[in-house]
Amino acid sequence: MIGYDGTDFLGYQLQAQGRTVQGELEHALKRITHTDIRVDGAGRTDTGVHATGQVIAFNAAWRHTPTDLQRALNANLPDDIIASTLEPAPDSFHPRFDAIRRQYRYTIINQPWPDVLQRRYAYHIRMPLDVRAMQAACQALVGHHDFAAFGKAPQGNNTVRHLMQAAWQVEESHLNFYITANAFLYRMVRRVVGTLVQVGLGQLTPSDVAAIREAKVLDKTIALAPPHGLCLVAVTYPRSVTQ
Amino acid sequence: MIGYDGTDFLGYQLQAQGRTVQGELEHALKRITHTDIRVDGAGRTDTGVHATGQVIAFNAAWRHTPTDLQRALNANLPDDIIASTLEPAPDSFHPRFDAIRRQYRYTIINQPWPDVLQRRYAYHIRMPLDVRAMQAACQALVGHHDFAAFGKAPQGNNTVRHLMQAAWQVEESHLNFYITANAFLYRMVRRVVGTLVQVGLGQLTPSDVAAIREAKVLDKTIALAPPHGLCLVAVTYPRSVTQ
Repeated sequence: MIGYDGTDFLGYQLQAQGRTVQGELEHALKRITHTDIRVDGAGRTDTGVHATGQVIAFNAAWRHTPTDLQRALNANLPDDIIASTLEPAPDSFHPRFDAIRRQYRYTIINQPWPDVLQRRYAYHIRMPLDVRAMQAACQALVGHHDFAAFGKAPQGNNTVRHLMQAAWQVEESHLNFYITANAFLYRMVRRVVGTLVQVGLGQLTPSDVAAIREAKVLDKTIALAPPHGLCLVAVTYPRSVTQ
Repeated sequence: MIGYDGTDFLGYQLQAQGRTVQGELEHALKRITHTDIRVDGAGRTDTGVHATGQVIAFNAAWRHTPTDLQRALNANLPDDIIASTLEPAPDSFHPRFDAIRRQYRYTIINQPWPDVLQRRYAYHIRMPLDVRAMQAACQALVGHHDFAAFGKAPQGNNTVRHLMQAAWQVEESHLNFYITANAFLYRMVRRVVGTLVQVGLGQLTPSDVAAIREAKVLDKTIALAPPHGLCLVAVTYPRSVTQ
């Protein structure tokens, strides 16, 4: 499991140009093992999106303990990526295909002026938000639905997803939105948050959110919440594939 | 009141060379008012130390509302400084001389690997800390004492301070130390935290801490906790001077 501060990355996935999390991981593994190693990740997080619970997997010939490899990896990774746990997995394990659940957190700071120590990790909204309405609107999303209004499928055409959790936790001016699904569509969490913020600002009602979802076509009017408030916090696997 | 992310500053106070909070504030005020304005601060925080409740004061000719000045200031300040409130004060007000109480917070992350989203704002300690012993050792510090063992006076020789609060708040692996005094000696909070960490690691006992304080000479063996875990959170004034 790895964590990263997404601020200075062009996202998780390797790109022809630019700094990516996958690129830095593969570079560190090459320095350690002197071989080219491909790293697969559970979630292809966008530019600027953070992670504390991203799961990655790779195949490496390693004669020492997993803890030694974790130490070597952390010694060779830049400060903004950390390997927080490392354990052996079966050869067949794939972090993205085998995952059965992903959880993201989206953080909003709702006060007149930004919190300077959170500016890299939270979306600052100055206008007061009606959190009760935002919470109510979540009910239009939880369940087994076609979420085509909120994004495209990363591959294929199936836009049906099972959303197990969508809820705001409020601590003074800090709003943390937790959302869990079997899988997400492309930019779905940021579109869901953008929509819920419109509810919080009184521009949409909770029943408008249900109508948007039921339209089942990508809604171009939905605001995309900025990436820096978003963090991939957990990926879950069935017991059978990791042991 | 201002907040800043101390990471990229050589501390609060203006220096001949290098980026400082005071320098950026004075620069922004010059851009707004086209005059040279001197800014006084309540606490001269060190290089790398953060603030969410620093209090500053300046004299400026301004024909519009305080809110307009706050907006202009925030528009002209870099992203890592924020003016969170702004209000008129009596001419005689001085943020440092008039302050009767300062509160700092020191954050430690105590787990095997760093929290990547906290690495700029928390001191990571891998070895498990005995927080109960650290809490007990605080009792040797609270009260009216000569703290010469923990630092030099910023001016004069008086090293007696009144410590009203010194306590750890624990939430899983996040340890937040809150310390409040009428005023602090130079680098006192970081030396107190360094000492308490030694207690947490079993290198000192709570009664050793009492003995260190009672020696009343600057203890060169005290570890200085790193600056990036420290944050000036509040400065208090008597009602009479601010109104």
